Amino acid sequence: MNSTELWERYQHWLYYNEELEFYLDVSRMRFDAGFVHSMKPKLQKAFQDMAALERGAIANPDENRMVGHYWLRNPDLAPTEEIKQDILETLQQIETFTQKVHRGEIYPPGASKFTDILSIGIGGSALGPQFVAAALAPQNPPLALHFIDNTDPTGIDKTLANLGSRLNTTLVLVISKSGGTPETRNGMVEVKTAFQNRNLDFAAHTVAITGKGSKLENIAKSEGWITTFPMHDWVGGRTSEMSAVGLVAAALQGIDIRAMVTGAKIMDNATRIPELKNNPAALLALAWYFAGNGKGEKDMVVLPYKDSLLLFSRYLQQLVMESLGKEKDLDGNTVYQGIAVYGNKGSTDQHAYVQQLREGVPNFFATFIEVLRDRQGDSPEVEPGVTAGDYLSGLLQGTRQALYENQRDSITVTIKEVNPYTVGSLIALYERAVGFYATLVNINAYHQPGVEAGKKAAASVLALQNRVMQVLTSAKVPLSLSELAAKAESSDQIEAIYKIVRHLHNNGRGVILEGNPGNPASLRISRLN
Amino acid sequence: MNSTELWERYQHWLYYNEELEFYLDVSRMRFDAGFVHSMKPKLQKAFQDMAALERGAIANPDENRMVGHYWLRNPDLAPTEEIKQDILETLQQIETFTQKVHRGEIYPPGASKFTDILSIGIGGSALGPQFVAAALAPQNPPLALHFIDNTDPTGIDKTLANLGSRLNTTLVLVISKSGGTPETRNGMVEVKTAFQNRNLDFAAHTVAITGKGSKLENIAKSEGWITTFPMHDWVGGRTSEMSAVGLVAAALQGIDIRAMVTGAKIMDNATRIPELKNNPAALLALAWYFAGNGKGEKDMVVLPYKDSLLLFSRYLQQLVMESLGKEKDLDGNTVYQGIAVYGNKGSTDQHAYVQQLREGVPNFFATFIEVLRDRQGDSPEVEPGVTAGDYLSGLLQGTRQALYENQRDSITVTIKEVNPYTVGSLIALYERAVGFYATLVNINAYHQPGVEAGKKAAASVLALQNRVMQVLTSAKVPLSLSELAAKAESSDQIEAIYKIVRHLHNNGRGVILEGNPGNPASLRISRLN
Repeated sequence: MNSTELWERYQHWLYYNEELEFYLDVSRMRFDAGFVHSMKPKLQKAFQDMAALERGAIANPDENRMVGHYWLRNPDLAPTEEIKQDILETLQQIETFTQKVHRGEIYPPGASKFTDILSIGIGGSALGPQFVAAALAPQNPPLALHFIDNTDPTGIDKTLANLGSRLNTTLVLVISKSGGTPETRNGMVEVKTAFQNRNLDFAAHTVAITGKGSKLENIAKSEGWITTFPMHDWVGGRTSEMSAVGLVAAALQGIDIRAMVTGAKIMDNATRIPELKNNPAALLALAWYFAGNGKGEKDMVVLPYKDSLLLFSRYLQQLVMESLGKEKDLDGNTVYQGIAVYGNKGSTDQHAYVQQLREGVPNFFATFIEVLRDRQGDSPEVEPGVTAGDYLSGLLQGTRQALYENQRDSITVTIKEVNPYTVGSLIALYERAVGFYATLVNINAYHQPGVEAGKKAAASVLALQNRVMQVLTSAKVPLSLSELAAKAESSDQIEAIYKIVRHLHNNGRGVILEGNPGNPASLRISRLN
Repeated sequence: MNSTELWERYQHWLYYNEELEFYLDVSRMRFDAGFVHSMKPKLQKAFQDMAALERGAIANPDENRMVGHYWLRNPDLAPTEEIKQDILETLQQIETFTQKVHRGEIYPPGASKFTDILSIGIGGSALGPQFVAAALAPQNPPLALHFIDNTDPTGIDKTLANLGSRLNTTLVLVISKSGGTPETRNGMVEVKTAFQNRNLDFAAHTVAITGKGSKLENIAKSEGWITTFPMHDWVGGRTSEMSAVGLVAAALQGIDIRAMVTGAKIMDNATRIPELKNNPAALLALAWYFAGNGKGEKDMVVLPYKDSLLLFSRYLQQLVMESLGKEKDLDGNTVYQGIAVYGNKGSTDQHAYVQQLREGVPNFFATFIEVLRDRQGDSPEVEPGVTAGDYLSGLLQGTRQALYENQRDSITVTIKEVNPYTVGSLIALYERAVGFYATLVNINAYHQPGVEAGKKAAASVLALQNRVMQVLTSAKVPLSLSELAAKAESSDQIEAIYKIVRHLHNNGRGVILEGNPGNPASLRISRLN
């Protein structure tokens, strides 16, 4: 394609939303008119399915749930008056709570104001708040946000050490729909212990964000926590940024949550239009389908050219991969679907892995995120007539062009600046694109059966650990691994037992290993009495 | 394979290094004896090539350079006495400098001590120091480390705002082998401007880490910077963590750099042994080859189950992809090599994209990084007999097993704890594995032609920007894009010009756009006089 044809193609496909000052360019995805034509029936179905979903159809059949994160941005669309009121009241509750915390009307025992937030949650309860904090938190937020998003003891210790004596004025958020997520439960227990060790009243510092009637809600009520915000069963974790999960922390940091919601609402409106060329989410879904042949054959590399969007790629990694990475389609066929997503930021990544993108395995397509405004205020010149921001812009353009010339396709998303309004719109754009793509490939984007399976596998290891400890406690002499396994009635799990005793031994848990730890057959295991 | 056979396979392939308390398990990669046998000639060549490289052969033929990052850990191996002395003197220089800074013998004008470090560098000059700081920096380091690793004006502003008035006591490191990397040069100019705006003496705060005789060294000398540390031309950016590039910042933060170097040296020794089963780097390279059929057909997902190793996956992303992502092999054949790498940390990622790993596109193999020791000190129980660390361990085991049962292969690396010694050893392990793999697939792992091409493409965009500004300055009436392109003698670059004027317009750079910015043909462009 010569430069004139390419310019024509660019203009033909360029999507622009004036209200959002948002551009989407799919011209560097090499699909042709035949492909677009062939996709029309599938796209029609995607538009219809999305409309049904928004009207309250059961879009997550496996869990028999409605999918309503769109209603959060436009409660008038909610299928019942009850849901509408619930959304409006929650938003009001968040704003009232935030005002009271900021004004010091809600305050910690023994101090006048909360200074920090410690958010305990994982997956959908962490990635959205982390992305939004990195993108939007002001330089000196009213409350500074910290995370425990894992069950790593060292990580927990580090977060608590960073807080130091400010734990006295820390507001804790415990975020879990059921209260049954072990990492979050463990974080809560560890933090509660830290509060108790300092003679602080955990309940007087803590807020739950959880499902109605959940185990966590019961704990919060019985222990008298500050308050509880709802997690609705029609909002999935990875699409929960505009629910209390994301908005409580955002509001407390001083981020304009109404602007986030408004940006998302406008994008929702834009992505409801059932015409490919006027619907940026449909354009994205089509481009993804083209790139990977509807089978995820190409990875999606996300390159925001803006430091504050560094975590957007990680946020999308969850949104896209957890939604689309499915074994079965809606008809029960084995399909092994998904799209792998990775990326950090440009132009930094040009000095890391973009070498491979340009020249190596052509197993990806790129998404450039361009931000038009370089900074607040003027820029010094780094060369006559040239600023640091001109370089950033030139590096994006140059890389996009070089990839294209080397047969590597790319999408470019352009926003005016990073603010609550545009961040809300980006979240909504990708939520909808994932929904469309799921229909194009006929899968349920709204469940995550593999996550549950991971929990079960871990629970089975921990049950085995308990049996092993019981056997060791009653053993009179040191045991070999196979003897230990036999006594624990788990001879088919010698390797798991080896890992368990190695781990316990290394953590002063009273398990003694004699022999060469790299030669499992040589080991004799006993318990310290 | 039944559980007994699998346990036999596990024990057969388990690599253990007693000195490092390091384990490598490749038993969950489904290669068979026939594959291992078939790879023997290639592995022999890899061992020979690596030995030659270490003796000083030109291992990077395109740039006619030796590859000597191994000598940094064992200067006695350096091919000349001059190189040996250079390594020893640099290490001594770093330690002396660090002592003087810590003691306040080197101090900023008007204050008694430096409190912060601002490191300006990108790619290999940033990722190693970032990874090491996240993994190893003490809770209250003698100097706190900050980064400018991009040419994003907002990002620069944010870093400077974080430093605030501590800029007065900030030690600046400018890291660039040539001084010609635009992002780093821009960061330097911006920071210098910030110092000048506050009437601070930039030179009295700043250190260069650069090649002998480079443009940057000349600036540092002529402006009278504090000092200069060398970047050797036989050390590539992505393998420079054990050179001044990594060690200066590490030492200033109070990290034991001798232990890092020792850990790396011991791993270098271990990975010199020319026997597959006794060489963990050869085992890794073999496993990678098997996974991707020697063509990078599977992505490498890196999952450290430890918060402090979060950036290890990003560090490896650069090391692996920039080294292996090559168009041509050493014989000039077009091969499009590479292995895509991504990952964050476990078990956090189990609530993000592990859903897709378990059930979706089987286009990857996983690498679990296990850390045996949970924390310093005891752990509270989160359930009777169970700690948060037991969960972390159980979740790793459970996920590895579930992936295997679903035909997804994995490697497991196990270290005792995260400390300077083990971090040094991990870096050395992967450097060597990448070197071996490059020989297995017959490519040059030590150049990065695509990075240079990216710079050129950006320079061409910036040159076009200058021409566009000249045309607009002399134009009497607003121009359409095609008129502007014709006058700039760049009619084949209308799209690039559209991007340029859109960017300038959005940054108050005196370029006026009239019309609908989403409809390029409607635009009329002029310059504000």
